[in-house]
Amino acid sequence: MASREIRLASRPSGWPVPENFELVTAEPPALAEGQILVRNLVMSVDPYMRGRMNEGKSYTPPFQVGEPLDGAALGEVVESRAPGLAPGATVTHRYGWREYAVLGAREARVVEEIPGVPLSAYLGPLGMTGLTAYVGLLDIARFQEGEAVFVSGAAGAVGGMAGQIARLKGASRVVGSAGSREKVTHLVRDLGFDAAFDYHDGEIREQLAGAAPGGIDVYFDNVGGDHLEAAIDELRTYGRVAMCGSISSYNATEPVPGPRNLGLAVGKRLTLRGFIVSDHPGRLPDMVAEVGAWLREGKITFAETVVDGLENAPQAFIDMLRGANTGKMLVRLAR
Amino acid sequence: MASREIRLASRPSGWPVPENFELVTAEPPALAEGQILVRNLVMSVDPYMRGRMNEGKSYTPPFQVGEPLDGAALGEVVESRAPGLAPGATVTHRYGWREYAVLGAREARVVEEIPGVPLSAYLGPLGMTGLTAYVGLLDIARFQEGEAVFVSGAAGAVGGMAGQIARLKGASRVVGSAGSREKVTHLVRDLGFDAAFDYHDGEIREQLAGAAPGGIDVYFDNVGGDHLEAAIDELRTYGRVAMCGSISSYNATEPVPGPRNLGLAVGKRLTLRGFIVSDHPGRLPDMVAEVGAWLREGKITFAETVVDGLENAPQAFIDMLRGANTGKMLVRLAR
Repeated sequence: MASREIRLASRPSGWPVPENFELVTAEPPALAEGQILVRNLVMSVDPYMRGRMNEGKSYTPPFQVGEPLDGAALGEVVESRAPGLAPGATVTHRYGWREYAVLGAREARVVEEIPGVPLSAYLGPLGMTGLTAYVGLLDIARFQEGEAVFVSGAAGAVGGMAGQIARLKGASRVVGSAGSREKVTHLVRDLGFDAAFDYHDGEIREQLAGAAPGGIDVYFDNVGGDHLEAAIDELRTYGRVAMCGSISSYNATEPVPGPRNLGLAVGKRLTLRGFIVSDHPGRLPDMVAEVGAWLREGKITFAETVVDGLENAPQAFIDMLRGANTGKMLVRLAR
Repeated sequence: MASREIRLASRPSGWPVPENFELVTAEPPALAEGQILVRNLVMSVDPYMRGRMNEGKSYTPPFQVGEPLDGAALGEVVESRAPGLAPGATVTHRYGWREYAVLGAREARVVEEIPGVPLSAYLGPLGMTGLTAYVGLLDIARFQEGEAVFVSGAAGAVGGMAGQIARLKGASRVVGSAGSREKVTHLVRDLGFDAAFDYHDGEIREQLAGAAPGGIDVYFDNVGGDHLEAAIDELRTYGRVAMCGSISSYNATEPVPGPRNLGLAVGKRLTLRGFIVSDHPGRLPDMVAEVGAWLREGKITFAETVVDGLENAPQAFIDMLRGANTGKMLVRLAR
């Protein structure tokens, strides 16, 4: 049985290019006891993967040149040597970037379809995306009802969820930034943000001050750079920053400037806190219960940008880094 | 009765100069009911005062041009219209920069001499200095026994206390930076730091990595700028930064560069938290109990740099900003 997979051909320097990837056909290994064979239906490409393409230690091991990439995927169990996990089950797992995956049954999460909600929600609002937004907003930034929230990269998968959770939890104001007029419209019209702006349209600080005239209490940072500097200026006393990522710097080949106003954190008693969603698996049930209910009630919207075919996954990843997606960037591997 | 006081003559632009200050003789107002007249014996000059010389909102109201400065002082009650606070008592209060102060009895803290410890300790280790170090290390940075700590500006009053508290609370390693060879010697020889370096001697990052080869868990930041950037590089996973001040930027007339590596806070799950000691008065009794015991037992050393005469207070303040002091910079107003 042949399975195609994407391998890392070489490490990107700066922006990734198609030549950094390689499409290879390989035979999946035979199943060992306790393992399952999954036919992947859809996989996600995510900003954090860029960091794993670099050499050197990070919070997750780097991808290895010549080895397949990995990441979140959803598929159907087609063969099983694991008691209690029969063929036909739908699972999510972390062996994306390939058509067929062999993994331990314990590495798989069995998912149930919610009426009216596509299964891909388990790669988005009900998966690591939703958990990242949930933990970042509630546990890291310690958002409280009545506070004003700013989310950068808000038309991305995590940003869109962070803004909507803030709204549903009683934020006094939810403001988002994004990279195009269409995305700005999407944030306000579809996701219920109170205000949004295109960061190309002028000084971020001025646009943020205009969109949140009373200042902000929480900043959910997906971007870093000048977005973070602007947020520090606009944060009120005791404000908090959940540092989720800094996509503005992932492809930089020179060090990017830091926020020149970080000293304001003293007088304003700000807290800036970085986090990694994989530290917080214990919050998954809470998140699924809350976000699942909102999804069923139609209170949460999630956008997806879907590309067809594993061979297009590298370009989808590159496009996602450039902001071509609205919501989750997914690659459909089979129907 | 004549009392001399220092007023703010004009707001400094960049480094303060003597012309920004004015020595004026004034008659203290008559005591109202509940007030006391204090003859100040000693006052402190502190880095945070520089920020209050600027116009515009901060966490404390700015000093007003033409008005006397204020700050911590210790003195003797010479007249009282407050029941229970008789002349002869020694008090600390916040009306320094003048020879005689009139204040409400409730604004004064009565202090008792500890045998072998000078009364000025109440402006240092047993005053706001000690509380700043104590709260910053224990409550803001959440230092735990066995962790490695880096303190910048460690030969300053707060820094010296932060390092000693870390040592006495069981730090695995305490490293300090300072601005001269003499101060570096003082840190290791007198204050019991495990290692110290002069930030003039080379790249801070390299010196820090050499002094704390296993990395650091806590950074107590008095300096900001390149010290903070170096600390972010050397912090281990789940490291914390107590942002106490950024003396490197107080006299800057241009925005100072921020840490270019702040994005590392995500993968390392760092927490950077600013704080102001006046938010934490409830911790004063705990601090005085612990630090007072260490002082009595001779386990804590504190240095003082003392200048004589109110007329020299402006220059003492300017010199302190340039690092002329070791430990607390004090101005003796009377004996």
